[in-house]
Amino acid sequence: MAQGALMFLSLVDRDDMWTAHFRRLKPSLEVRVFPKVEPVEDVSYALVWKPPAGELLRYPHLRCVFSLGAGVDHLLSDPAFPKHVPLVRVVDPSLTRGMSEYVVLQVLMHHRRQPEFLQFQRLKKWQLLMSPDAGDVRVGIMGLGVLGSDAAEKLRPFGYQLAGWSHTRKSIAGVESFAGMDELKPFLQRTDILVCLLPLTPETRGILNRETFAQLPAGAVVINAARGGHLVEHDLIAALDSGHLKGATLDVFQTEPLPESSPLWAHPKVIVTPHLASFTDPRFVSENVVANIERIERGEAPHDTVDLSRGY
Amino acid sequence: MAQGALMFLSLVDRDDMWTAHFRRLKPSLEVRVFPKVEPVEDVSYALVWKPPAGELLRYPHLRCVFSLGAGVDHLLSDPAFPKHVPLVRVVDPSLTRGMSEYVVLQVLMHHRRQPEFLQFQRLKKWQLLMSPDAGDVRVGIMGLGVLGSDAAEKLRPFGYQLAGWSHTRKSIAGVESFAGMDELKPFLQRTDILVCLLPLTPETRGILNRETFAQLPAGAVVINAARGGHLVEHDLIAALDSGHLKGATLDVFQTEPLPESSPLWAHPKVIVTPHLASFTDPRFVSENVVANIERIERGEAPHDTVDLSRGY
Repeated sequence: MAQGALMFLSLVDRDDMWTAHFRRLKPSLEVRVFPKVEPVEDVSYALVWKPPAGELLRYPHLRCVFSLGAGVDHLLSDPAFPKHVPLVRVVDPSLTRGMSEYVVLQVLMHHRRQPEFLQFQRLKKWQLLMSPDAGDVRVGIMGLGVLGSDAAEKLRPFGYQLAGWSHTRKSIAGVESFAGMDELKPFLQRTDILVCLLPLTPETRGILNRETFAQLPAGAVVINAARGGHLVEHDLIAALDSGHLKGATLDVFQTEPLPESSPLWAHPKVIVTPHLASFTDPRFVSENVVANIERIERGEAPHDTVDLSRGY
Repeated sequence: MAQGALMFLSLVDRDDMWTAHFRRLKPSLEVRVFPKVEPVEDVSYALVWKPPAGELLRYPHLRCVFSLGAGVDHLLSDPAFPKHVPLVRVVDPSLTRGMSEYVVLQVLMHHRRQPEFLQFQRLKKWQLLMSPDAGDVRVGIMGLGVLGSDAAEKLRPFGYQLAGWSHTRKSIAGVESFAGMDELKPFLQRTDILVCLLPLTPETRGILNRETFAQLPAGAVVINAARGGHLVEHDLIAALDSGHLKGATLDVFQTEPLPESSPLWAHPKVIVTPHLASFTDPRFVSENVVANIERIERGEAPHDTVDLSRGY
C-alpha cells in the first residue's frame, strides 16, 4: 500500500462516524478500527485516545501519532510510547468551546449558589440567599494555554476579577498574570473560585493539595476540569469537611469511572460530572488529521506537534 | 418640613442599610421605615417593593413613587395605585447583570444537561451524555428590553443561535428579531431554549401556556425569570409530563413563596429557585433616588418614569 493505513485505537464510541469522515475526506486512506489492525506493518498513522500501554510500539512503520483531547500526559507517561514518532495534539476549537462552557457554567453555579438552592428544592424550602456581586468575586485560572485563555475570555463579560497562573507570564486583557512556583501563593491568596485547566506534568501532578487549599481564602471553591492526577482527593475532602472550602466541582478523577465506593459521589459540597467537560468534534479532527497526513506525504513536518521535553 | 420625608414600604430586609445610604447621600432627608410612617402628611416620596394594595393612596402629599425591581406590574394592577403621581422604575445595572448571570447559568445548565448529571450523581452512576454543539442550539428570548438585550449579549460569545421576540422590532447584533403576535409562532418554532424576560402586562399574562409550548420543537426547555403571571403552571407540567418539553427552570411563580403543596417542587424536570434571579444594589438605587428627588425639588421632571399607558 502506497499510502499506509490510518489506524484507530480505543475510541470511546462511534467508530463508524469517524470512519465515514475519513472515507469522505481521503478515500485512498484505509481506516482500521482497533483491535482489528493486522497486519501492523501497514499502519503509518495512529489516531488515539488513551491507547493501551505499549500498544503503539507494535507498529514498526508508524510515521505520526494523532492524540485526541487537550492533554497528552497519558501518552507520555507510558514508558513504551514511541518517542521517535511525531506526536500531534489535535487542537479542536469545539473542545475549547465545550471546556469554556463547562467552566462558565460551574463558576456561575458556585457564584450564584445553585447547589444550595437545589438542596432547598429537595426540601421544598423557599429560602433566599444573597450572592456577591461578580465584581467582588475573584476567579483564578490555573493554566493559561488555549483552554485557560478562552475560559478567561468567556468569563470576562460577567465582570469577575480574573487572574491566571501559568508556567510563563501571559498577557491577556483583563487577566492578572501570575507565573511560576514563586507566584503560586499570591495567586491562591487572591482566588475565591479556583479553576484548574493545567496540563498534567510531573510538576503539576498533585498540585491541588492540602497546602494549596490552605492558601485559598476561607469559603473558596475548587473546580477541576483538567486531570484527576492534579488533585489529591482526600486533601480536598478534608478541606471541605473542615469548612475551609465551600464547594467543588470535579470532572476528572484519580480513577475513572469514579468507583461507587468514592466518598466524592455523595459529598454534599461536591458536584461530580463524568469527564464530560469537553469533547472532540470528529468533523474538525478528521480534517486536521488528513491535512497533516498530506503534509507528511509531501515530506513536510506536521503541524501542532507536542514538545516532548515540556510535556504539552 | 421643607424637604418632605422619604418613606420606605415593604422592603424584604436590611432597612438599616438603606437608611444609612440615604443618610450619607442626603442628610436633610428624613427616612421612615414602613409601617412607622405617621404622620402620612409628611411623606413626599415612596420607595417601594410590593407595597400592600391601596397603601400608597394614604399619602396625600406624595410627589413621586420609586419602584424597585424591573417589573412594575404589581403596582399598576393595584386599582388604588395613585396614577396622578409619577412612577419611577429604578433601573439598576447590577439587577441587569444579576439577571444575565441567571439566564446564562440556566441556559448552560440545560444545554450541558447538568440536571441529568446531578441525578446520576445521586445514583452514583458514571454515565456520559452528549450535548449538542452550542452552534446548533437555538435560544429564544421573550422580551428584548434592558434585561433581554443584555442577556443576549452575554449569551452571544458562546455561539448559540439567538433570537428575540418583542413588542416592536429590535436591532441587536447577532439576534434575529421577531415582533408582535403575528411572529410569535415562527419565533417559537425555531426555539430550543425559551427564556422569558417579558414585562407582565395584560397582553403577556399567561403567555407561557399550552399553545405556546405546543409550538416549541419537541425537547425544548422553558426558563421563566420574569413573573409568575406569565406562566400557566399546569400547562407547563402537562407539557413536561407528555415528554414534549424536556425541562424548565422557574424563578417566579403564581404564588410566592411557592406553596409546599406545589407539584413543581418535586418535579424531576423542573429547577425551582426562590425569585432570586436578580437583586437591586442599594448603593446604586439610593444615588438614583436622591438624584431624582433633587430634580423634583428643582422643579424638573424625574428620569426613568414608567409610561402608565404601556405598563412598562
